[in-house]
Amino acid sequence: MPRFKLILEYDGSAYHGWQVQPGLPTIQGLLAGGPVPVTGAGRTDAGVHALGQVASFEAPIALEPRVLQRALNAHLPRDIVVLQAAEVAPDFDARFSARSKTYRYTVLRREAPSAWHAGRVLFVPTPLDGAAMVEATRAIVGCHDFSAFRAGTCAARSPVRTVYEAGWRFEGDFWHFEITANAFLQHMVRILVGTLLEVGRGRRRAGSLADILASRDRREAGKTALPHGLCLVEVHYEPGEFTKEP
Amino acid sequence: MPRFKLILEYDGSAYHGWQVQPGLPTIQGLLAGGPVPVTGAGRTDAGVHALGQVASFEAPIALEPRVLQRALNAHLPRDIVVLQAAEVAPDFDARFSARSKTYRYTVLRREAPSAWHAGRVLFVPTPLDGAAMVEATRAIVGCHDFSAFRAGTCAARSPVRTVYEAGWRFEGDFWHFEITANAFLQHMVRILVGTLLEVGRGRRRAGSLADILASRDRREAGKTALPHGLCLVEVHYEPGEFTKEP
Repeated sequence: MPRFKLILEYDGSAYHGWQVQPGLPTIQGLLAGGPVPVTGAGRTDAGVHALGQVASFEAPIALEPRVLQRALNAHLPRDIVVLQAAEVAPDFDARFSARSKTYRYTVLRREAPSAWHAGRVLFVPTPLDGAAMVEATRAIVGCHDFSAFRAGTCAARSPVRTVYEAGWRFEGDFWHFEITANAFLQHMVRILVGTLLEVGRGRRRAGSLADILASRDRREAGKTALPHGLCLVEVHYEPGEFTKEP
Repeated sequence: MPRFKLILEYDGSAYHGWQVQPGLPTIQGLLAGGPVPVTGAGRTDAGVHALGQVASFEAPIALEPRVLQRALNAHLPRDIVVLQAAEVAPDFDARFSARSKTYRYTVLRREAPSAWHAGRVLFVPTPLDGAAMVEATRAIVGCHDFSAFRAGTCAARSPVRTVYEAGWRFEGDFWHFEITANAFLQHMVRILVGTLLEVGRGRRRAGSLADILASRDRREAGKTALPHGLCLVEVHYEPGEFTKEP
């Protein structure tokens, strides 16, 4: 049975997240369609987008990757697209083979909302101290217990994650929070952003992130930022490791 | 009666263009709402977007521009946003005071469509000769009779327009056609792009644009490209000319 890797782009606005939920439209539900189990690298929440989600599955029949890609794109709604399809080694698993993932959370910091980017950015009309947010972000880089930044419903066994990179990229009024880690806890990016926004609003000190981490207490962190500013940008694998030999 | 200039951003997907049409949702219709006549700098077609459309109108009462902006944004649907509001001199007219306008038409040249940019780019899965398109574009810069590139329904008295700049900006798979002219004929950008795409597909010579212009015959030009790749980017006015003295 051939195994495939798909790279997916989607606008999550209309979906109840990645994971199959009976009676609700989800990305995994639409992709699987039938009895084929599809694994996703990141279980994006309802309303969260993806520019580079990765999925893997075993096809019941031999297929040309290009043919598979076209067939899926012809069948999927226009807000979900298969950017790439490739046959991979039998031990490839979109989730467990991933070395790291990069998420981006975008804040639109200006007076007026955006018609063009509505549903894809968090609109913040009030002033924010960007420098304080940048400073506060430094504390989360590295290997930490992120218990303070995980949802109560998070099922991960360990709360320890390694953040390889985290920072803000300012593009005019668009403030992009970009974070790469070996893995993420449930709502981790959204709670981090919610907390950093409270720093930006002057409600917390820039140095407070280290204390919140140390507390390992969800109640010490800020509110969970709304999902629609979040996007799974890329999933990283060891180059060549799972390439199917031709 | 104070006169106002508005800068507008909108996603035209849900609208039947700029101009009021009885019984149909249009941008002008939504902005005017009541008996106030609103003039737009560019009469964008159904499905065409704007990042910097400009509108002008006379308000029946004195208003702080900021208050006006907030009131409009609170009342408008989320796919139309007032980016800026300013009081202007009584002789300012969004359309007739405009010195030039810039439009952008975006082609997505790759195998797979985009979920993220769906409805905002023209998806072209087949190969295109970008160099030939760039070369062909040169002929349209300058002052020309654009009769071959105007819709049969175009009501403009003169078909002569001056194109100040026109060219392609390549951003990965996104090919942006950007054009600035003193004014535009109906469907002019879309017919230009449709014709240039035929050059890209090898169906016309790169040198053919000059001949098409000279023919002044709409039948010599290519198909009108679909509206959803088009966006009114900016309207240019003489700096300071219509500024209201405080």
